[in-house]
Amino acid sequence: MSEVAYRIDALQYANWSEEIFEQMRSGGVDAVHVTIAYHENFRETVANMERWNSYFERFPHLVFQGFSGDDVRLARDTNRTAIFYGFQNPSPIEDDIRLVEILHTLGARFMQLTYNNQSLLATGCYEAEDTGVTRMGREVIEEMNRVGLVVDMSHSAERSTLQAIEISARPIVVTHANPGFWHPALRNKSNAILQGLGETGGMLGFSMYPHHLRAGSDCSLADFCRMIADCAEIMGVDHIGLGSDLCQNQPDSVVEWMRVGRWTKKIDYGEGSASNAGFPPMPEWFGDNRDFGNVEQGLLEVGFDANDTAKIMGNNWLRFFDENFGPHD
Amino acid sequence: MSEVAYRIDALQYANWSEEIFEQMRSGGVDAVHVTIAYHENFRETVANMERWNSYFERFPHLVFQGFSGDDVRLARDTNRTAIFYGFQNPSPIEDDIRLVEILHTLGARFMQLTYNNQSLLATGCYEAEDTGVTRMGREVIEEMNRVGLVVDMSHSAERSTLQAIEISARPIVVTHANPGFWHPALRNKSNAILQGLGETGGMLGFSMYPHHLRAGSDCSLADFCRMIADCAEIMGVDHIGLGSDLCQNQPDSVVEWMRVGRWTKKIDYGEGSASNAGFPPMPEWFGDNRDFGNVEQGLLEVGFDANDTAKIMGNNWLRFFDENFGPHD
Repeated sequence: MSEVAYRIDALQYANWSEEIFEQMRSGGVDAVHVTIAYHENFRETVANMERWNSYFERFPHLVFQGFSGDDVRLARDTNRTAIFYGFQNPSPIEDDIRLVEILHTLGARFMQLTYNNQSLLATGCYEAEDTGVTRMGREVIEEMNRVGLVVDMSHSAERSTLQAIEISARPIVVTHANPGFWHPALRNKSNAILQGLGETGGMLGFSMYPHHLRAGSDCSLADFCRMIADCAEIMGVDHIGLGSDLCQNQPDSVVEWMRVGRWTKKIDYGEGSASNAGFPPMPEWFGDNRDFGNVEQGLLEVGFDANDTAKIMGNNWLRFFDENFGPHD
Repeated sequence: MSEVAYRIDALQYANWSEEIFEQMRSGGVDAVHVTIAYHENFRETVANMERWNSYFERFPHLVFQGFSGDDVRLARDTNRTAIFYGFQNPSPIEDDIRLVEILHTLGARFMQLTYNNQSLLATGCYEAEDTGVTRMGREVIEEMNRVGLVVDMSHSAERSTLQAIEISARPIVVTHANPGFWHPALRNKSNAILQGLGETGGMLGFSMYPHHLRAGSDCSLADFCRMIADCAEIMGVDHIGLGSDLCQNQPDSVVEWMRVGRWTKKIDYGEGSASNAGFPPMPEWFGDNRDFGNVEQGLLEVGFDANDTAKIMGNNWLRFFDENFGPHD
């Protein structure tokens, strides 16, 4: 195969450090979509960008901020990792549609319309009822389409997700989840969503977060890769990639922030439970960024050829970045 | 009747001035619930409180901030008007449940769970679908119950309102709306809501805003007061009062802020239309705060006795203030 095979991870949220950036280099990871907001408001999100700017200043030989697909190529050419920003909740735009453009200018490339709860835009997967996309949600999708901020429905409820696929004039994504037919977790996705993403040029990134895996932390690489093969049958091999959901070295206080934010005074265990409140251990074949080679090998072993393996490992995401991170043509 | 007859208006949003405060005195208005936030976030709401503090400093002989029912009695005793704060949207608490207590300490006494759109807490009456009260909504209602911040569903959708009545451990209110059986505007309320409010110790404040009136600006005082009599049959005469929705001297830019906030880049006309975008003229019998005597006279003329008239003019609201503005006993 003469084409370059890129490695792109469409979702990580680690306790960032020089060590992790070096692991990205060891794993040959050209680009990572990093979460920079769970429940942060605009100003808090900007503070997280300030922290990333300090990483870029301190470790310019390892990481730099990515804005476009070409930055993934630049990363490969210069042996570095391009970091793309995204939000797991629309909290950074607060109630202000015009913050969509401001945040895109600052580098935001993905925004979930909801985390687990109802947002101003749509319904999260933990709500009992799902209204679908709200009045403001329709306006914000149109604005995201205009500037090139990608709609991500990873944590959204079924109806909201199907409506977002329909309403959005540009393809949307689920950066990190797995098919529900394989493991029926609340966060995993129905065949209707998988088909909708595939038919509209969208993307699904496969999660390696144990709560999304059949058998959890004990999930085998072969089982994971067979699931990807089954999913490719439904969606097409051009619409799938990786979104590991790697939450490396995070203290349990962080998973509490992710789940509880400021919306309740109680504890909500989200996908965990009182007896399993923290981050579960990752599967042994994917402990950190150095292990992307394992996944590549697993894909080859379940029968993907080199070209399709390269698509899943990163080339599909690169095509998607090229087409969706800027204004409409 | 030996009991004092108070006059309380449960909703005004005027372009405040010394002239309007003097009109409150001319009309014998003992207390007004004033809107201090439509779409304002926490800091912007505090800025509006700062502005009110400047009014209280400049016009201490006319107005002062009210915190409890006793402040209404103080207002009567000192010939002034007590001003109580409220929000027409939960935007002042942003996504932070602990701002409920902070804002109550600052004097907030009513908070609508939604304005016209979906909020983090519930669904507004202009959304196509109504999820009811959200996960965060249930938590926030519990916290509002704890501190004594009253749930107001004036602009909320049907199902959300019925759920709020059911979920809230303390009575809730609709500060400003009319029954839908009389004028089927989107903002007016179903018999189910009226009955629910009456049965749970809640309150309805009758609106004199033309979009909520049968025949709009041409609505007669007699028709308005007959509607109140019909409503008393459904809810009981102890659960009704006034909530005029007086928006005096506001420029049309303010109605645009109320309707559009920051949620769309387009214009939304709300209850108006492109050809009738601004504030409609008030009915001739209620132009400003000097006209509360007309309403009192109208109530007597449709057959309410002096005691029931006093209840509707303010004594019901005073009882409600006494019971609901502080922590649970």
